Amino acid sequence: MKKLEDYVVSIPDFPEPGIIFRDVTSVLQDADGLNLAIHLLMEKLEGLDFDVIAGAESRGFIFGMPLAYNLHKPFIPVRKKGKLPRETVSASYELEYGTAEIEIHKDAILPGQKVVLIDDLIATGGTSKAMIQLVESLGGIVVKNLFLMELAGLNGRAKLEGYNVDSVIVYDGK
Amino acid sequence: MKKLEDYVVSIPDFPEPGIIFRDVTSVLQDADGLNLAIHLLMEKLEGLDFDVIAGAESRGFIFGMPLAYNLHKPFIPVRKKGKLPRETVSASYELEYGTAEIEIHKDAILPGQKVVLIDDLIATGGTSKAMIQLVESLGGIVVKNLFLMELAGLNGRAKLEGYNVDSVIVYDGK
Repeated sequence: MKKLEDYVVSIPDFPEPGIIFRDVTSVLQDADGLNLAIHLLMEKLEGLDFDVIAGAESRGFIFGMPLAYNLHKPFIPVRKKGKLPRETVSASYELEYGTAEIEIHKDAILPGQKVVLIDDLIATGGTSKAMIQLVESLGGIVVKNLFLMELAGLNGRAKLEGYNVDSVIVYDGK
Repeated sequence: MKKLEDYVVSIPDFPEPGIIFRDVTSVLQDADGLNLAIHLLMEKLEGLDFDVIAGAESRGFIFGMPLAYNLHKPFIPVRKKGKLPRETVSASYELEYGTAEIEIHKDAILPGQKVVLIDDLIATGGTSKAMIQLVESLGGIVVKNLFLMELAGLNGRAKLEGYNVDSVIVYDGK
């Protein structure tokens, strides 16, 4: 029986030297790999009391939506600046060169709602931190940060201290 | 009982004057709306013989993945140029100003595989046409172009002549 790790293709030096890129498209292009990935993420939410799933453009959409559909929850797409048509709140985070800004609609999360944030990968934790800011600025409560893969060598957990962080696969390196 | 149309918020003059933006995030932020949207898309695939679902970054990911998971098919994310780490094929399409280029991995689709292309919206059909080119360049067969919403006034179907095109909601205008 194949493990989820067996479906992930690792590409050294992409997008730049020293980085091992963990390719999730190789998981998705096998129906059994895709099924296993969603199944393992779903297991991580068993018994958790929550109201909403949110995921960031664009790989957060890939993993957030099947969970939202199968658990009958709303899905909030967190988008890059300028793509949402109604009134938004925004938060920014640092990139290696410059900053990026993400947004959600102001009515996307109601005060007191319990929110699960999902993404394919946690690296430095910058995107997750900005997503937490968005949710909290609307009065939501982040009950879990869920990832398919974690690059433990980049220590994203430190940036999310005090929050529940959980990953299906943990890689030691970067 | 609410219809899917009732969940779609229409925003006049976004992103520019004369365009009515059909906001799909308002569907997703209601668990019943999200459920209904996926259910209606799934109905459109009933009895269809196919192997793979592909969807374009980033709203195609939203609707493609729950279908792939629940129908136990692979999902191929069609991405903007430069984001995929392995060897790719690419196709370009016209935007109002300039062109855009999309890619998939060369091994994402095998010759003879029957492919369903999915997106939230068909407008002029430019993205869909480029996706068809990608699939066919790898020897795949596009058996259906499936959309949640169609702006019939932009006549995207003309660009996809000879292909199976199907939409859950058809709006007369632009």
